[in-house]
Amino acid sequence: MEELIEKIKSSIALSVEAEKHLRSISTEKVAPKGAVLIRQGQAVTKVYFVTGGCLRSYCTDSNGKEHTMQFAIKDWWISDFIAVYGDEDATLTIECLTEAKLIEFNAQDLDEILTRFPELEPFQRGNLVRHIVSLQKRILNQLQLTASQRYDLFLDQYPDIEQYTRNYHIASYLGVTQESLSRLRAEISKR
Amino acid sequence: MEELIEKIKSSIALSVEAEKHLRSISTEKVAPKGAVLIRQGQAVTKVYFVTGGCLRSYCTDSNGKEHTMQFAIKDWWISDFIAVYGDEDATLTIECLTEAKLIEFNAQDLDEILTRFPELEPFQRGNLVRHIVSLQKRILNQLQLTASQRYDLFLDQYPDIEQYTRNYHIASYLGVTQESLSRLRAEISKR
Repeated sequence: MEELIEKIKSSIALSVEAEKHLRSISTEKVAPKGAVLIRQGQAVTKVYFVTGGCLRSYCTDSNGKEHTMQFAIKDWWISDFIAVYGDEDATLTIECLTEAKLIEFNAQDLDEILTRFPELEPFQRGNLVRHIVSLQKRILNQLQLTASQRYDLFLDQYPDIEQYTRNYHIASYLGVTQESLSRLRAEISKR
Repeated sequence: MEELIEKIKSSIALSVEAEKHLRSISTEKVAPKGAVLIRQGQAVTKVYFVTGGCLRSYCTDSNGKEHTMQFAIKDWWISDFIAVYGDEDATLTIECLTEAKLIEFNAQDLDEILTRFPELEPFQRGNLVRHIVSLQKRILNQLQLTASQRYDLFLDQYPDIEQYTRNYHIASYLGVTQESLSRLRAEISKR
């Protein structure tokens, strides 16, 4: 929990009352490798702040094929935000690719704390804005870059992730086949 | 401007002072068809609220090919948010596909009004959250749906847009060739 409190304090002035309330609505958890936190098709009530390990969110299409939406490592928030914000059932599954250290919140509690302590709004606004920038970049990259350029960017963004992930996790994030990913890796090893 | 004020008042209690300040930082504009509001590679200082007409944001890749990021119609906000929030030069160009009625803001003024009138934060949070949901849906649709399913969703989302747009605008939004788009249309007309 200290990591998150420090992160907030580095961006805004956090009152003693707001800090106390934030601690009271948070639960520190260690989830084992393979644990599923949110399951596609079910209701979503939780939002997670990651303090260690690696998670993946993905959807499974009508042919049973998985498509990776996001990886989350230390200092990232993860949930099914379409479900949380849009009040829908989960379109994503979230699984732990390693043992994961998490701070768990009820989405509703996080919403209420902003009404009760408006001092937190600029911190949350910063999170939302960074999220928008990262999603827009992902869309533009998917539209205009080659698979090889997207893989390079992916390695820049998640430098240590290949030790935690399987080939199909990364291939389905990039939107390429596993065979194409193997070719990209072979090309990179020749550079 | 009344449309935007009404929209804000339907979501939060807007004080007389905040309303007055919001009006003082806004400029109502009519931009002719073909006008370019933001140009890829240049600095971005403006954010627009659309009250009429249709706009398109797109990027041009290193081969000169255009990729459509977003269309904006009445009640949508449009800018290059990567540039505004990430403090970078524009990665997008924004053009008016029709004559467009706009409310123009300096991005910095919009940021400052939130600090000065925190009562506006929940309204802005609602905008940001809806933006995240729409971007995440776009990514998931691009990853898991067929071109035909994406075109159907596009027509649901922008029912009247085909009268304003050229084939390559829509094809480059869907990430398909113009020939594929023609095939999709032919299939739909046979249904």
